[in-house]
Order: sequence, then structure tokens, then C-alpha cells
Amino acid sequence: MDTHETAVRGYTQDKASYARRLKRIEGQVRGIQRMVDEDAYCIDVLTQISAIQSALKSVSLGLVEEHLGHCVRHAVEQAHDTGDTSEMDAKLAEANAAIARLVKS
Amino acid sequence: MDTHETAVRGYTQDKASYARRLKRIEGQVRGIQRMVDEDAYCIDVLTQISAIQSALKSVSLGLVEEHLGHCVRHAVEQAHDTGDTSEMDAKLAEANAAIARLVKS
Amino acid sequence: MDTHETAVRGYTQDKASYARRLKRIEGQVRGIQRMVDEDAYCIDVLTQISAIQSALKSVSLGLVEEHLGHCVRHAVEQAHDTGDTSEMDAKLAEANAAIARLVKS
Amino acid sequence: MDTHETAVRGYTQDKASYARRLKRIEGQVRGIQRMVDEDAYCIDVLTQISAIQSALKSVSLGLVEEHLGHCVRHAVEQAHDTGDTSEMDAKLAEANAAIARLVKS
Repeated sequence: MDTHETAVRGYTQDKASYARRLKRIEGQVRGIQRMVDEDAYCIDVLTQISAIQSALKSVSLGLVEEHLGHCVRHAVEQAHDTGDTSEMDAKLAEANAAIARLVKS
Repeated sequence: MDTHETAVRGYTQDKASYARRLKRIEGQVRGIQRMVDEDAYCIDVLTQISAIQSALKSVSLGLVEEHLGHCVRHAVEQAHDTGDTSEMDAKLAEANAAIARLVKS
Repeated sequence: MDTHETAVRGYTQDKASYARRLKRIEGQVRGIQRMVDEDAYCIDVLTQISAIQSALKSVSLGLVEEHLGHCVRHAVEQAHDTGDTSEMDAKLAEANAAIARLVKS
Repeated sequence: MDTHETAVRGYTQDKASYARRLKRIEGQVRGIQRMVDEDAYCIDVLTQISAIQSALKSVSLGLVEEHLGHCVRHAVEQAHDTGDTSEMDAKLAEANAAIARLVKS
């Protein structure tokens, strides 16, 4: 985990798009709260939750893609230049763990 | 889909608990928006999304459970009493479709 | 778990179809072994595994559907007739646990 | 897809381990065929299928890991050396598509 404020991330150039998609997902979660509050039919609630799951999955896959194409790529290049693979190994292990969590969540 | 206002649903008796869990999930989605806004590390964002996916999955499984134990159960009883299975068949088809969406979402 | 030999199961009438689908899946798994043995490209192996996962998921959803429409249905009817819900409660709990495993596997 | 016979793959050094795991999975699929043939209880069949799904998921995640750590890594290094990113871009796109299929299958 590194969190210094001015970091540029894999997703930075698509930040506005991610922000918009997450805003929409937040609205969908609020929609489900309203449905439950109004005793909506269970199946209709389930359908909405499945839609949110798909939207989140799509956001996650986008983040993985950017992570591989930026963070992992740069770590590989650096290891190639310096001969020190420790940072690359760490980044790859982290990416693999994130993919595994995504596949299992 | 049936949406008359005073319906009692499978989840009605646990309504407060579902409302609370969804409120928490909404907060988690907002947390992710903040993370993206502050250029948090991709992997940390992914970890949070996986946590939301697990929480949503758990809500969905709870709703399926209540649906089977109430709506489907009552439709089976009614079909058994009246000999008319059309409503039960529809409820079962609907439940199966929801389970399939859940498995695939 | 009950395993007396002459049991009639939810899937009994579609037994031949399930046998055929599982036979095909077995062949697909053998195909992957061959691919690995011949050093096939990782991505091609992954594509084949995804195909098997989808086929297994589809078999599972079919079994859940038959289970709800037969075993669970009969347990509900019996509980309705006798007023004793213990068998029905057990069958529902079992079905819910199987659905949860399926969603998470 | 590239399939020349003497290829060295990301998984080549663990080939024996993959072969063993796939052999075991094949045996599990045959076990399910036997269960269906003997009219085993639906829920018991479902439990076995979930076990196979988990085993296949684990094989897939292993292959992704090796693919990123070998094929993708080498493509990145080559692009870094030559300035030509076309092969790397193709490898990354392929990896992302495989991860997406895995997440959705």
C-alpha cells in the first residue's frame, strides 16, 4: 500500500470515467435501499443486485487492466534495467492476489 | 413482478437488518469514490471492491433464502391445496432465473 | 445425505442428459491434460478451462432447479400435510447451503 | 494462439504438477458420473461439482500467474528494448480477456 497524495495511478487518465461509474453504482445501491424500504418483490431486488455486481466486476476488470498496463509494466521495465527484480516480484504477487480475490469474490 | 404497496415479503421481518447492510455497502461505494478521487493505489481500490462484492453476495444469498422459505413455499402449498400449479411453476422459474443470474454475475 | 440404492432423484428423468454432459466435460478435462502435455499456449488452456467452468455451472444450475422442483417441493407439501416442518427446514437449509457454495465456488 | 511444438510456456517448469492436478480433476468428474448413474442425492452431486469448480479455478489462477510472470513479462522487456510495443499490447490484451473470462465463468 502506498498513498502519497500526488501519485499517478494506472487509472488516473480515466479517473473521471471511474468516478462517474462509481457514482452510478452508489445510486443503484440507494435504489435497492428504497426498494427494500417499500417492500419490493424479492426477485426484483435480486435482479438489481446482480446488475450492481456486474457493474462492479466491470470496474474491477478495468482497474486490473490499467494496473497491468502501467504499474506492473513499469516494474518489469525497471527490473530489466537494473537487474533488481524485488519490486517487480512484489508487484506481480500483489496483482495475482488481487486477481484471485476478484475471481473468488 | 408484483408491486402492490402493502406487500409482505420474505425479507420483511429482517427489513431493518437488510436496510443496515445496504447502508453500509453504500458507504463502502462512497469510500471507493473517495479513494479514486485521491488517486489511491489500484490494488487497494480492488481490495475494497472485492469486499463490497462479498457483502452484496451475502445480501443476495439471504434474499434467495427468504424467497425460497416464504414465497416459493407458499406457492407450493397453494398448488398442493388447489391442484393448480401455474403460480408455483412461475415462482420456481423466477427463483431459478434469479439464482442463475446470481451465479453468473 | 441419503443414499439408498433405488432412490428417485430430481434429476432422474434427465439422467441420460446429465450423463452425456458430464461425459463431454470429462473429455474436455482430458483435452486440457493433452494441451498441457504438448505445451499449449497458456491463454488457450485458460480458454478451455473457462469453457469447462461454464459447462459445470450449467449442470449445477440444472441440478438446483430439479432439486427445488422435486425434493424441496415434496418436503414443503409433506410439512403442509403433517404440520411437521423439520424435514422441510432441513431440505431448505441444505438447498441454501448448496446455492451459497455454488455462488462462491 | 501459437502452437509450435517445442514452445516453453509459463507453466512448463510446473508441468508435472499441473498434469497431476488435472488428472485428479478428471477423476472427480468421473466420480460425479458414477454418482449420477447411481442416483446419488442432488445435494451431494452439487457439493462435488463445487469442489471441481474450486480446483479448476485454482489451476486457472496458477496459469494466469505464470503467464504474467513469464509471457507478459518478456513481452514488456522486449518492447522496452526495441521500442515496438505491438507484441506487448497484444499479450496484455489477451491476458486481460482471459482474466475477464475467468472472472465471469
